[in-house]
Amino acid sequence: MTSLTAPPSAAPATGGTSAGTPVLPSTGALRPLGLDEVRVTGGRWARRQDVNARATLAHVEHWLEREGWLGNFDAAVEGRLPHDRRGREFSDSEVYKLLEALSWEHGRTGDAWADARVRAITARVAAAQEPDGYLGTMFGRPGQAPRWSALEWGHELYCLGHLVQAAVARARTVGTDDDLVRVAVRAADHLCDVFGPGGVESVCGHAEVEPALVELSRVTGERRYLEQARLFVERRGHHVLADVEYGRSYFQDDVPVREAPVLRGHAVRATYLAAGTVDVAVETGDDGLLDAVRRQWARTVARRTYVTGGMGARHQDEAFGEDFVLPPDRAYAETCAGIGSVMLAWRLLLAGGGAGAARYADLVERTLDNVVAASPSHDGRRFFYTNTLHQREPGSVPPEDVAVGRAASSLRAPWFGVSCCPTNVARTVASLGGYVATTDDDGLQLHLHLGAEVRAALPDGTPVDVDVDVEEVDGVDGVVRVRVLADAPRAWSLSVRVPGWAAGAVLEEPDGPAGGRPVDPGTAVVRRAFRAGDEVVLRLPTAPRLVRADPRVDAVRGAVAVERGSEVLCLESVDLPGGAHVDRFRLDPSAAPRVEDGLVVVRGRLLPDDEDGDAAGGDPGAAGAWPYPGAGTEAAPLGEPVDVVLRPYEGWGERGPATMRVWLPVAGADDASAAVGD
Amino acid sequence: MTSLTAPPSAAPATGGTSAGTPVLPSTGALRPLGLDEVRVTGGRWARRQDVNARATLAHVEHWLEREGWLGNFDAAVEGRLPHDRRGREFSDSEVYKLLEALSWEHGRTGDAWADARVRAITARVAAAQEPDGYLGTMFGRPGQAPRWSALEWGHELYCLGHLVQAAVARARTVGTDDDLVRVAVRAADHLCDVFGPGGVESVCGHAEVEPALVELSRVTGERRYLEQARLFVERRGHHVLADVEYGRSYFQDDVPVREAPVLRGHAVRATYLAAGTVDVAVETGDDGLLDAVRRQWARTVARRTYVTGGMGARHQDEAFGEDFVLPPDRAYAETCAGIGSVMLAWRLLLAGGGAGAARYADLVERTLDNVVAASPSHDGRRFFYTNTLHQREPGSVPPEDVAVGRAASSLRAPWFGVSCCPTNVARTVASLGGYVATTDDDGLQLHLHLGAEVRAALPDGTPVDVDVDVEEVDGVDGVVRVRVLADAPRAWSLSVRVPGWAAGAVLEEPDGPAGGRPVDPGTAVVRRAFRAGDEVVLRLPTAPRLVRADPRVDAVRGAVAVERGSEVLCLESVDLPGGAHVDRFRLDPSAAPRVEDGLVVVRGRLLPDDEDGDAAGGDPGAAGAWPYPGAGTEAAPLGEPVDVVLRPYEGWGERGPATMRVWLPVAGADDASAAVGD
Repeated sequence: MTSLTAPPSAAPATGGTSAGTPVLPSTGALRPLGLDEVRVTGGRWARRQDVNARATLAHVEHWLEREGWLGNFDAAVEGRLPHDRRGREFSDSEVYKLLEALSWEHGRTGDAWADARVRAITARVAAAQEPDGYLGTMFGRPGQAPRWSALEWGHELYCLGHLVQAAVARARTVGTDDDLVRVAVRAADHLCDVFGPGGVESVCGHAEVEPALVELSRVTGERRYLEQARLFVERRGHHVLADVEYGRSYFQDDVPVREAPVLRGHAVRATYLAAGTVDVAVETGDDGLLDAVRRQWARTVARRTYVTGGMGARHQDEAFGEDFVLPPDRAYAETCAGIGSVMLAWRLLLAGGGAGAARYADLVERTLDNVVAASPSHDGRRFFYTNTLHQREPGSVPPEDVAVGRAASSLRAPWFGVSCCPTNVARTVASLGGYVATTDDDGLQLHLHLGAEVRAALPDGTPVDVDVDVEEVDGVDGVVRVRVLADAPRAWSLSVRVPGWAAGAVLEEPDGPAGGRPVDPGTAVVRRAFRAGDEVVLRLPTAPRLVRADPRVDAVRGAVAVERGSEVLCLESVDLPGGAHVDRFRLDPSAAPRVEDGLVVVRGRLLPDDEDGDAAGGDPGAAGAWPYPGAGTEAAPLGEPVDVVLRPYEGWGERGPATMRVWLPVAGADDASAAVGD
Repeated sequence: MTSLTAPPSAAPATGGTSAGTPVLPSTGALRPLGLDEVRVTGGRWARRQDVNARATLAHVEHWLEREGWLGNFDAAVEGRLPHDRRGREFSDSEVYKLLEALSWEHGRTGDAWADARVRAITARVAAAQEPDGYLGTMFGRPGQAPRWSALEWGHELYCLGHLVQAAVARARTVGTDDDLVRVAVRAADHLCDVFGPGGVESVCGHAEVEPALVELSRVTGERRYLEQARLFVERRGHHVLADVEYGRSYFQDDVPVREAPVLRGHAVRATYLAAGTVDVAVETGDDGLLDAVRRQWARTVARRTYVTGGMGARHQDEAFGEDFVLPPDRAYAETCAGIGSVMLAWRLLLAGGGAGAARYADLVERTLDNVVAASPSHDGRRFFYTNTLHQREPGSVPPEDVAVGRAASSLRAPWFGVSCCPTNVARTVASLGGYVATTDDDGLQLHLHLGAEVRAALPDGTPVDVDVDVEEVDGVDGVVRVRVLADAPRAWSLSVRVPGWAAGAVLEEPDGPAGGRPVDPGTAVVRRAFRAGDEVVLRLPTAPRLVRADPRVDAVRGAVAVERGSEVLCLESVDLPGGAHVDRFRLDPSAAPRVEDGLVVVRGRLLPDDEDGDAAGGDPGAAGAWPYPGAGTEAAPLGEPVDVVLRPYEGWGERGPATMRVWLPVAGADDASAAVGD
C-alpha cells in the first residue's frame, strides 16, 4: 500500500507552486502555470467560467441526484444493489467528474460552497468503497457481474480513472491530506494489485485510467502508478480485449500504440489514450513513444479533424472516419472528444515546446472556442453532446425534465442518458486557467489569448507577472495587450503565440518601431529586462476569412467556411429571409464579406424554394423527380442577392429551432460539372 | 381456422394463369406475367439466374446448415432449445427465404432438385411447428422469452412473414396442396388469432408480414389475412411499439402511414412496409392509402436515393438520412433495401400503369442493375451486404470460412452474422422473370429490357407471344429487338419502356419510317394486328453519360457520375496507373468520355501522391498540416493527363482489394472557392 503519512511531493495550491493545474509533468520543455498563478479575468471565457460556477455545477449535481447516479453509492452502502441501481455502466464517472470540476472551482476561487460540495459527495462515495479498495456500483455484488469480467464494455477502470483525476485536482488545490485523495489512492493501489505484474494482463475498453495514474504518480511521488499506466499503454493493441462489432480499433486494441500511424476508433477513447501515452512517455523518458504520438497527432489533424477542431465523424461508433471522411452532415464531433483533443495537444505542447508549441496551441484554441464552447448553452444548463457542422432539420425541442438521447436536435438538452459531456465541460471550464500560460527557465509563454492575470516566477525567482487584456475590435478579439506588472532583475523572454489564422498580425513592444512590426504565425518573442508598466501588444487581424478544405475532403468541395478571429462562423436559418432553409443559400463569389455593427455579413443568393414541389401531387413523372440529371442540365436559377449575417458557431441554436451550416456552397459550384464534355 | 379443403382461387403455374409471379394483385392497371409466361433467355440476367441456380442456392443451404440456423428447427423438435440455438433472432427467416428462392427456381425451371430441397427443408421446418400453429425457434420455450414479448426487436412476425412468402411462391408454382403452404396457413391463422380484433394491438418491429399476408390472401382467397395486414398497416405509426434508441421512426411507428411525407428510418423496414401498404390499398380499394405511398415514393426517389438506386445512407441504424443526405462515403445502400425498393416500385407500377409506369420501372431497372446485381460476386458465392459508392480503404480479405460483420471491405464475403442479403438476392434473382412484362386488356407491356421469351394471352384470348433479344453495341445493351411469335386476330398494343436515361432512342416498327422514329423517355406504343415475324426494335443510346446531382446533395458537389445504358460506372484503383488511390483522380472537363474496345475511357489528371507526406517526420509545423487553408490558396498542381477505364459498378471489387469511387470530382472544382473574394 502507498502510505500518505510520508508527505508527497505535491503542495497545496496556495503555495504558488503551479500545483493547481490539470497536467503537471515532472519534466518537459514548458512548465504549466496553475490556477493560483493564472486567473482568467475577462472576455468570453471569464463569462463561461462564471456561468459554469453559477449554473452548471449545481445543474449537474441536480441531475446526478435526480437520475439516481449519486444515489447508486448510497444504494451500495445500504445493500440495495443491483436492484436499485440507475444509469449506465459508467454513471459513477459522472459523479467523479463533478468532484473534479468542484475541486478545480474551489482551487480557482477558494469558494467554500465548492469545497463543501466536494466533501459531502466524497463522503457518499467513500462510504461505498470496499475494504480492499475496490470502488464501483456496477460490478461484484451478488446479482451483479463479477469485478473485471467485462473489460470491453464495463468501464470499471475508466470510472476509477475519473475518480483518480478528481483526487488529483483535489491534491493540487488543497493537498493530499484529503478524504477524496485517500479514497483514490486506495482504489489505485487495489487496481495495481489486480492489473500489475503477474495480475490480469489486460486493459479497459475505454482509456482514461492511463493519464489518471500518471497524474496520481506525479502528485504522490509513487512510481507504481506510473508503472501501471505504462503497462496499460504497452499492453493495448495486442488484442488483449475480445473483438467487438466495431472491430478492435474501436478501443485501440488493433495495433500497438507505438506502431499506429493515426488516431482511429472511438474518438474519446483514442484521444484519452494518446494523452496518457504522452504522460507515460514524458515520465519514463521514452522519446520513441512520444514521437509515435506526435506522428499520430499530425496525421489526425491533417486528415481527420473538422474545421471546428471537432474529432470523430461517425455516429455509429462515435469514431474517426477514414482519412478525409469529414462530412458536415451528422458530424459527430463529440464534445468529449474535443476535450480529449485539448488534453492531448496541451500535453504535446508541454513536452515539446519550441516552434511546434504554437501549432499545438492553435488546435487547443480552435477546439476550445468552437467545440468545447459550443456545447453548453449560454445559461450553462443545456448541452450539445455532438457538434454537427450541418443541421438539415430543426429537430424537436428537448424536454425540460427528461434525459434524452445523445443526438441531434438543433436545440441543446439539459441532460442525456449517456451524459459524459456536461460534466466534462464543467471540469474543463473550471480548470481553463491551467491552459493559458507556461514558463521555462528563460521566460513566460502566453498560449491562449484571453483576459488573464498571470503571477509567476522563473526558477531563479525572476517575477514574470503580467496582466493580459483583450480588446474587441469590430466585435471580435483584436488587440492582446500584455502589461508587465513587476520589475525584473534580469532580461527574460515574453513569448506570445501568433495564431495560425493571424496572417498580418503586428506586434508592438517597448522601444520597438512605431506601429509595431509584422509577426508571422508561430511564436513572437520579446526579450528584455522588463519593467513594470512595459507593454507588449499583439494586434490581430479582425477581417472575416474564407477557408477551403483539402481537396480530398469530398464532402465540402465547392464550399467555403468563414472564420473570424479564433471562431468559425455559421449560417442559421433564423438569419435568412423568411427563415429559409440554409441549404438554399449560395455564397456570391464576387462580394467579399464585410463587418457591420460588429457582425459579419456575406452576400449570396437563394435557390428556389421547392419544398414539397418535387413531391407535389405524387406524380412520379414530375420534372425533377429523379435528382441526377445530365451534367449539362442547367441548375435552377438563383434568386436576387441577399445579405445575411453569419454568427459564431459556438452560439448557434440559442435562438430556437433552426437549420444551420458551417460550409457555404459557392454560387457556381453546383454547375461545375455542367462544363464537362462541352 | 382456414380450411384448405375448399379449393382456393390460386391454380398451379402449369396452367399458364400468370400465377407464378411474386406479386399478383386481384386488381390494378396492369396484370403481371408469371414465370410460366416469361422466361429470361439471354444477357446478364440470364447468366445471373444460371449462377443463382448453379451456385448460390447450394451455397446458401450450406451456410444455413453450417451456421446451425437450419439445425435450430431440429433442436426445437428434439427439445434442445434454447441451449443449442444458433444465430440471431431472425435466423429462421433465412431458411424461409431459401425456401422461397428454391420454390421460384423450381417454378422457373421445373428442376426436380429444387423441388426436392423444398420438400426436405419443409419437413424439418414443419416438424417444429407447435400444435397451435406457432412457429419460431427463438421464443416461447422454457428458458426463452415468452412469445410476442419483444415485438420491437424479436422479429417473430417478420420471420413468419417470410415463411408465408415462401408458401406463396410454392402455391403459385405447384399449387396449394403442399406441405409448406399448409404450415404457413396454420401459422397465419395463429397469428391472426393473436393479433386480430380483440387481440394484441401491436405490430412487428420489422415490417414484412404485411405484404406476406396480403399475398397469402390472394393465393387462398381468405380475406382474414388481408384484414390482418390492414390492421398492421393502420396500427403502425401510433406509437404502439416502445421507443428505442434510434427513435420510433426506425420502425416507422412515428407517424401513421397515411400521414408520412417520405420514407424514413430503417430502409428495409420502410420499403417492406410501403410495399405491404400498396398491397393493402389495392385489395381494399383504398385510394387515399395508395396515394400516400405514391407521394412518399416520389419524395424518397427525389431526395433520398443514391444514383445507383440504393436507399439508406446511414450505418448506425441502416436508415435513410434526411433529405439530400447522400454521402458516397460509407453509403449503406443495403442490398435488401434495394430489393425492398424493387418490391415497392413494382407494386406501384402494377397499381397505376399509365405514364408513371415507366418511371417506376426505371427505378426497378436501375436498382436491379446497380444494387441487386452488385451484391453477389460473379461466381454467386460471395456478397456485399452494403453497397457503398466510395471505398476509401481497400480493407481486408474476408475469410473463406467464417461469417463476417456486415461492412465494409472492398471484397465480398461468403456469409454474414446477419445474413439477410444472400437469401434475399437468391429469391429475387430466381423470380426475376416476374418483373419483366405485364398485360392489360389492350396489350403487352415490356418493362425490363432483357433477353426473354414471353408467351401470354390477353383476356379475350389474343396471343401476345414475343421473343425479346437484346444486342450489345460497343459492349453495352443497345438494341432491343421484339419479335412477335403469333398472328393476332385483332389489333393490340405493344408497349415498350423507353428508359429515363435513353434520350435519343429510336423505335423501328412494321410499316414505320425507315430508320425508325425518335421516341422520348416514357412508354412507346405500337398498336396493330401483329403478325408472326413482325419486329419492333428499340435502339438505345450507348454513349457514356455524365450526370450531376441535385445541388442540395452536398456530398458530391463538383463531381459527376458516369453512366452507360442502365449501368452506373465506377473508377477502381486497379485501373489507375500504379494502382493509385482513386481519390487522386480529377476528371478533365475538356475531354469527353469515349468508348474503346467496348470499355468507357475518360481522361483526367492525378493529384500529387502525398501519402504520408503531411505526416512525415511528425513535424506539426509542416506545410499542409492544417487542412483548411485560405480560400485563395492554390491547390496542388495536377499531373499529366491520363486515360483511365471506368467499369460497371455492379462488378467492382472482383479484381482484388481496391479503392473505388462512383462520383468523380471535376478538375477545377477543388478550386471553385479560390475565386471567392478576389
